[in-house]
Amino acid sequence: MRLSRYFLPVLKETPAEAQIASHRLMLRAGMIKQQQAGIYSWLPLGYKVLKRIEQIVHEEQIRAGHIPLLMPTLQPADLWRESGRYDAYGPEMLRIKDRHDRDMLYGPTNEEMITDIFRSHVESYKQLPLTLYHIQWKFRDEVRPRFGVMRGREFLMKDGYNFDLTKEDALHAYNRHMVSYLRTYERMGLTAIPMRADSGPIGGDDTHEFLVLAETGESEVFYDAKVPELKLGDRQVDYDNREEVAGICEEFTTLYARTDETHDEALFNEIPEERRQVGRGIEVGQIFYFGTKYSEPMGATVNTPDQGKVPVHMGSHGIGVSRLVGALIEANHDEKGIIWPEGVTPFHVGIVNLKQGDVSCDSACEALYRAFAEHGLEPLYDDREERAGAKFATMDLIGLPWRITVGPRGIAANKVELTCRRTGESEEMSAEAAVEKVAAIYAAL
Amino acid sequence: MRLSRYFLPVLKETPAEAQIASHRLMLRAGMIKQQQAGIYSWLPLGYKVLKRIEQIVHEEQIRAGHIPLLMPTLQPADLWRESGRYDAYGPEMLRIKDRHDRDMLYGPTNEEMITDIFRSHVESYKQLPLTLYHIQWKFRDEVRPRFGVMRGREFLMKDGYNFDLTKEDALHAYNRHMVSYLRTYERMGLTAIPMRADSGPIGGDDTHEFLVLAETGESEVFYDAKVPELKLGDRQVDYDNREEVAGICEEFTTLYARTDETHDEALFNEIPEERRQVGRGIEVGQIFYFGTKYSEPMGATVNTPDQGKVPVHMGSHGIGVSRLVGALIEANHDEKGIIWPEGVTPFHVGIVNLKQGDVSCDSACEALYRAFAEHGLEPLYDDREERAGAKFATMDLIGLPWRITVGPRGIAANKVELTCRRTGESEEMSAEAAVEKVAAIYAAL
Repeated sequence: MRLSRYFLPVLKETPAEAQIASHRLMLRAGMIKQQQAGIYSWLPLGYKVLKRIEQIVHEEQIRAGHIPLLMPTLQPADLWRESGRYDAYGPEMLRIKDRHDRDMLYGPTNEEMITDIFRSHVESYKQLPLTLYHIQWKFRDEVRPRFGVMRGREFLMKDGYNFDLTKEDALHAYNRHMVSYLRTYERMGLTAIPMRADSGPIGGDDTHEFLVLAETGESEVFYDAKVPELKLGDRQVDYDNREEVAGICEEFTTLYARTDETHDEALFNEIPEERRQVGRGIEVGQIFYFGTKYSEPMGATVNTPDQGKVPVHMGSHGIGVSRLVGALIEANHDEKGIIWPEGVTPFHVGIVNLKQGDVSCDSACEALYRAFAEHGLEPLYDDREERAGAKFATMDLIGLPWRITVGPRGIAANKVELTCRRTGESEEMSAEAAVEKVAAIYAAL
Repeated sequence: MRLSRYFLPVLKETPAEAQIASHRLMLRAGMIKQQQAGIYSWLPLGYKVLKRIEQIVHEEQIRAGHIPLLMPTLQPADLWRESGRYDAYGPEMLRIKDRHDRDMLYGPTNEEMITDIFRSHVESYKQLPLTLYHIQWKFRDEVRPRFGVMRGREFLMKDGYNFDLTKEDALHAYNRHMVSYLRTYERMGLTAIPMRADSGPIGGDDTHEFLVLAETGESEVFYDAKVPELKLGDRQVDYDNREEVAGICEEFTTLYARTDETHDEALFNEIPEERRQVGRGIEVGQIFYFGTKYSEPMGATVNTPDQGKVPVHMGSHGIGVSRLVGALIEANHDEKGIIWPEGVTPFHVGIVNLKQGDVSCDSACEALYRAFAEHGLEPLYDDREERAGAKFATMDLIGLPWRITVGPRGIAANKVELTCRRTGESEEMSAEAAVEKVAAIYAAL
């Protein structure tokens, strides 16, 4: 993309209403625009990041054998009357009447609707196990929306639901979700720690939250310093292998890591003192096993091998897709702006032309632009008539992980400068070498 | 995907409520489930088609230089009060109050909000031309939703908006949209004819609808028999070249083609009699030029080269993404089921194992499955313990363009059967030859 033809409305001033770094930086980098309290337009740069995150979530869900579908944003109130939640939910539920005065609501979550889909179409245990998920906009009418997309009212969430014959099967689904989530966050360059959690209004016997460590997190967290060092890395996982999947879950949940909701001081104090960590965390996902809480009242049953009929065991599993954009920035920024991990960056590399209009600089930049495209990478080429300082400031603000600077002196010596946004380190090399180096970094992801 | 692990709830019975082929077939093929009047869940097979269509729309918009973003589904009423449409819109607008009693609405279209984004961030003519678009769920509270996703209430639409300094520039944007739409529909295997249209409630000086010929279309259409023969084919288009783009528009709009709204009997009768065609059409897109209708009342102005200030010239351009799924089926089906064009098929090829459990059949199917994946294609492998007849009926119903049948007799002779869904013709060949043939068909798209 050529910046002269893009729509990247960066702000020079820091918006007064933004209290945390991610909100400030998303506004300044032209990623979002607030349309009303807690409701945002995703401007082109923000939309690109949102799509990258969504894509990673899809890929990892499909890898785990989960099946995508899409439920609508609006739901009939009657479904929620069946589960008893229509009256229980409170003012965070956005209630709507249509022109025929029928009660509807903007879905804050989808347990009822997915259970309705299941009971309409599945009759036999032979059709299990089954895990269905979607990535769809939700609405929760927060009384005080704040922190930008971190606590918005209209937000994008992945929510998945498993249907299993037995509790044991459902706990395998739970474990499968935990492992797929670990891989999802790692691919984004995030360390998200699974922590035992309270079940809250959705209910459930077993539940973990995934928390990203960040000073601005809403939860206080207590953990063993060894926990953030745990990595899945590039190991291959057979999601059908119960022992293997359970083993990974054990590896990631045995050491102490809890939020203030479930914190146990005595257990915490058993950790060697030098490893005891207290900090703050941002919740970016949660997994639940809740058994037959919805299948029983809503009649989601299957025939069993011995001619019986039983309600299925279910769980629900969420990833906050739009919230992740904020969490990623909270965990990856400095005083100059955002620092995108390679896995989610909106553009793979920035090209800065120090002397727009100079024939050799222009043609070197165009050649770089084409070379990256041939590697399947998307560069953002700052081809504006602007001072070098302004171009650098924009690139630092929007946070592309790699920047190539092209100037007349360098080009005369067949050199460009490759700069790493995270370390600030620059290196001179030929344009070809710079392309190869950046391409190799992305190929290794 | 292995069918034994998929969620494909095909129906044996024809649902009584469905009046047209696409609605019937989408229900029978397990593509959608109605959740309330005019509001559908997209089950896995339907969701896959929806995503393929969305992807083609994105690719062609980006190719034309248009920039994607994403506006929220809910909008503040105040924006619509500025344009005067809040009171004018009528009961099709779904009006909502939040917990603080603020007036909101579920967006039926986005002229106001995109104009608000523009005026907040663009000041100079130098930032033009600019075309922004999104693909987002909309809501229109139809009094009698019907025909499945063809006239639903919650529907997915691509809507794009151009901002230009002059009328001449805006008409180039209009033409650019026309050409990009022609290519979009062609890639889906559809013949969609641009027809001069009435401007309707959005207002506008210049507008064309795109209609797909189908007996169940809601509009009567009158056209020269030569019009449906016009094709863009694989010609390369330079979207910045005004003459070239205008030339293509002329090529596609000079021959007579109109809906009943703008039909002119005298002009129609000038066509040689044997070429006069009367039929029905489904609207799958519309482009509008409407000048300063929104930019003036909403103050979307830019500074001009001579220090003046003028409201920008705008247009809006829509493609009915979810409706296209229905339109595609109306135009591509027979008595056995759907016939997907290769460009939008949910799976590229079906594999039918005639003798599940037979070692040679099973291993031949597994080898085919892997071979297609290596070509970047997605097969649907019917690995269920089912009669051949039931497997064929399912494949015919869901309409994958190509099917490979593997049976013990064929495998003994190193043969499989490759069947074309559209023609019904079958051919025996080696498994390798079948993979190569199918891969070549998709590679040519």
